[in-house]
Amino acid sequence: MAVNLRVSDPADLHPVAGVELGTARAHIRKPGRRDVLVIRLAAGAAAAGVFTRNRFCAAPVRVCRDHLAGEGGAAIRALVVNTGCANAGTGAGGLADARATCAELAALMGCQPAQVLPFSTGVILEPLPMDRLIAGLPVALADCRPAGWAEAAEAIMTTDTLPKAVSRRAVIAGVPITVNGISKGAGMIRPNMATMLGFVATDAQVAPALLQQWVRDAADASFNRITIDGDTSTNDSFILAASGAAALRIAGDADPGAAELKALITSVALELAQAIVRDGEGATKFITVQVQAARDPAEAAAVAYAIAHSPLVKTAFFASDPNLGRILCAVGYAGIDDLDVDHVDLFLDDVAVATAGGRHPDYREEQGQRVMQQSEITVRVVLNRGPAATTVWTCDLSHDYVSINADYRS
Amino acid sequence: MAVNLRVSDPADLHPVAGVELGTARAHIRKPGRRDVLVIRLAAGAAAAGVFTRNRFCAAPVRVCRDHLAGEGGAAIRALVVNTGCANAGTGAGGLADARATCAELAALMGCQPAQVLPFSTGVILEPLPMDRLIAGLPVALADCRPAGWAEAAEAIMTTDTLPKAVSRRAVIAGVPITVNGISKGAGMIRPNMATMLGFVATDAQVAPALLQQWVRDAADASFNRITIDGDTSTNDSFILAASGAAALRIAGDADPGAAELKALITSVALELAQAIVRDGEGATKFITVQVQAARDPAEAAAVAYAIAHSPLVKTAFFASDPNLGRILCAVGYAGIDDLDVDHVDLFLDDVAVATAGGRHPDYREEQGQRVMQQSEITVRVVLNRGPAATTVWTCDLSHDYVSINADYRS
Repeated sequence: MAVNLRVSDPADLHPVAGVELGTARAHIRKPGRRDVLVIRLAAGAAAAGVFTRNRFCAAPVRVCRDHLAGEGGAAIRALVVNTGCANAGTGAGGLADARATCAELAALMGCQPAQVLPFSTGVILEPLPMDRLIAGLPVALADCRPAGWAEAAEAIMTTDTLPKAVSRRAVIAGVPITVNGISKGAGMIRPNMATMLGFVATDAQVAPALLQQWVRDAADASFNRITIDGDTSTNDSFILAASGAAALRIAGDADPGAAELKALITSVALELAQAIVRDGEGATKFITVQVQAARDPAEAAAVAYAIAHSPLVKTAFFASDPNLGRILCAVGYAGIDDLDVDHVDLFLDDVAVATAGGRHPDYREEQGQRVMQQSEITVRVVLNRGPAATTVWTCDLSHDYVSINADYRS
Repeated sequence: MAVNLRVSDPADLHPVAGVELGTARAHIRKPGRRDVLVIRLAAGAAAAGVFTRNRFCAAPVRVCRDHLAGEGGAAIRALVVNTGCANAGTGAGGLADARATCAELAALMGCQPAQVLPFSTGVILEPLPMDRLIAGLPVALADCRPAGWAEAAEAIMTTDTLPKAVSRRAVIAGVPITVNGISKGAGMIRPNMATMLGFVATDAQVAPALLQQWVRDAADASFNRITIDGDTSTNDSFILAASGAAALRIAGDADPGAAELKALITSVALELAQAIVRDGEGATKFITVQVQAARDPAEAAAVAYAIAHSPLVKTAFFASDPNLGRILCAVGYAGIDDLDVDHVDLFLDDVAVATAGGRHPDYREEQGQRVMQQSEITVRVVLNRGPAATTVWTCDLSHDYVSINADYRS
């Protein structure tokens, strides 16, 4: 049950010139569902990506890094994604499988294997069913079309209850521009440089080096600010592609339209990231954690994540129980050794909960109870130590999280 | 439902000469249950403690630190514990309440307030009901007796399903010695220098400075090696008392019997710590996480805790589902930047699961399934990087954890 997450009407997902998407039902794990996606990029497109920092990163992540290295991002012609199997914890065989997938698709398209980026998501420690995956590639390729965004969002889902797709249009420097994105992820979500899978594409032309900077900045403002269960996945990948089909040419940050395009891309990434939290496994609440007046960004993030990861805080939100001392407890163990708790203020939405190391004199249980019953809640912690602030988005911890993850493979 | 946790027969809890325990039903939070404990120490006893590093530490923790500072540990005459209210996140008022509790008990006993150590456990951010607590003190004091250990273990419970008490006897350097301990805790358990509440007492005489070293070493080998939900509590306290009533005098680590006594004390602390995990909120499995061949103890602990805290690993144990890639995933995000995953070996009990970055060639799903159905499971990760090793104990994450913590205050 996702929290206030709307499925985009396919008619609202505008095509992005130079980008075509096609899917197949390849029976990677479950029969009958779309589970292979090919995204074909026009010649001249550029792509850039950021990936998980998990050392047990999946084989396709290693191949993506290889193919994007050097000038590789300027030559990417296709992305290929399978769900149902993560191809992680699969050793040398998994790496060979990811490379073979690229080679097969490249042969079908008449390009080089290094011009294909592979992605996988699903169960770890199991080999890819290569025969079925390869059989699906020509089907997905034949299905490629500019209007394929809705099916693409569906084809990459795992435990997601809803597909996640965002489409935005703007006129930038006089040129009509479209930025679209899709993402998937609902559990094993604590991205570290990227999220489970996120793909954003625009029809503008953006220089490859700049695109690499932008994908990193956009991830830092979006996917790197969410958490569901604190588990950094083996497969996190976030890719930004610029097809160059539109007449907007961006070579540097100071070019006309550069700031607007970057902001548009970041807003799409942020909506996709928040969509992952809204569809978090078992989520019933969407929680915004703001930490303000921290000494530096690192300590702001440490406090925000301590709150966002605490199972006790998350179960209290699930129960709509204003057991708010659990939030103070998490602030206390966030690792700030010289924190003076007498200077910490805690707010729940507009309600002042704690100050001077204890309960705020005006706080009444009914106020906390009222806010806790909402489906969207902001926790605000003011440390009163300095100028830094951060925001992290998370969800609650419910029975359904346990059910979903106890049953995931069955 | 605790995992293979036996309640001690009161007849097996031997008295510790110089230590008396008494309880009262003071209606701190729930009517009719024992919720106040007084432990009275003979004149000449010494006490030492370690406490939570949570910056939002409870008021009684601050008072304990004050009273144990300097030579304070050599003069402690009583410990007083209430359950039902943590007296944490209570500001200056909470500190005054903790001090007033000590003063009241000291007046009843004819000693100084600084000779009393206070402890609280329960809900955070709510004030202590001082009238009821103070009314309970003379009742508990009048109840003090050497045979009071079983009722004492019961009086400090919160969400614990079973009382936790351990009693061991040995002849050390020719002197019959007893070491007893009690502990409580089932959630908000990720001790950092101590646990929720643990009290261990011996009748030997141990020099106060040595006792302080021993309490720290014993905590590091026991309470600091367990986790249930990663939430470091505001109230963690572990106290070691030596009454000096027996004819064993230990002034330094090299004294006859010192090593044996320290080992006995540590074994009691370890059994109490493991009892907390066995009674972890909602626990159905007792999990031992061993990390071996790490470069240093810090990275061994980082890997062990990444596994032990992963909600995905814990729900897989709950489901008896050998979805073991989740364990590799946790190893991968544990923060070892130069980890070569091709050198990591994973075992589940005696079953080789993963090697060379992927599934072990001999591994069969049925083997994993067999081990996962046990109530006690050992996860062993061999990093093949160096000489360091550690062990951490944890439990699974079940529906009941969510239920217990969604309903805790109601």
